[in-house]
Amino acid sequence: MGAVTIIAVGKNKQKSGFYSLWSDYQKRLSWKINLIEIEAKSPAEELKKLKEKLSPSLPLIALDETGKTHSSIEFSKIVEKIHLSGEPHIQFVIGGADGLDDEIRSKARHIMSFGKQTWPHMLARVMLIEQIYRAQQILSGHPYHRE
Amino acid sequence: MGAVTIIAVGKNKQKSGFYSLWSDYQKRLSWKINLIEIEAKSPAEELKKLKEKLSPSLPLIALDETGKTHSSIEFSKIVEKIHLSGEPHIQFVIGGADGLDDEIRSKARHIMSFGKQTWPHMLARVMLIEQIYRAQQILSGHPYHRE
Repeated sequence: MGAVTIIAVGKNKQKSGFYSLWSDYQKRLSWKINLIEIEAKSPAEELKKLKEKLSPSLPLIALDETGKTHSSIEFSKIVEKIHLSGEPHIQFVIGGADGLDDEIRSKARHIMSFGKQTWPHMLARVMLIEQIYRAQQILSGHPYHRE
Repeated sequence: MGAVTIIAVGKNKQKSGFYSLWSDYQKRLSWKINLIEIEAKSPAEELKKLKEKLSPSLPLIALDETGKTHSSIEFSKIVEKIHLSGEPHIQFVIGGADGLDDEIRSKARHIMSFGKQTWPHMLARVMLIEQIYRAQQILSGHPYHRE
């Protein structure tokens, strides 16, 4: 059905529990997941690298604590609406420890938050791929998600 | 400093990524973490077993989507306030796929939510222990948490 590119700051180590959970959801998704990891030594370098990796032609959803929290059903509807508008490929971006720069946020069609809590960014990645997997199951009418 | 009992529905398998992340945070905590897992075939059995495991004399924080979302700093202050009131041992309860019964919710001093999203309960456990670890680091002045 669709493809998803996730641009994220930091390198997820292959032997970590985060990596194992990420891979598990990735395998269960029929949507193609393309992870682009960025490593940077300063906020300026991070911004430069993020801008290089972002595709201006693809719709962008940014994860940021300044964003809205959506229920899983609402999130699946956002994804569905983008797909139905003829854009089967969505980009997500997850910032590093200092959050996202205004310049990146201004490019996003939606800014989404995972609540008021602060989460480690590797855990936020797992939370994101789980919500993407849940959206896929909701949209395909699969009983993984229960209200 | 303190002790934490977490009463949770479901069995976390030793080889899962969830288990590995849980164990990692547990090792990093100087607070003693006591996990009590409950397995039940029906909501009635779940309620009965939860009631058996809950200690009426200990303060209870329930995780439930009907609860409030707190920032990590606010959560650390809730934990600190309970400790300062002379109760060094806190209980948490996490329900199963159908959420918590009203009877359990009514026993809780705080009801806490991890946002409007639905999370798998094994992931919710990892999110909870991470927030407990983060609260420990905030209260001890450790730089793990950045605002």
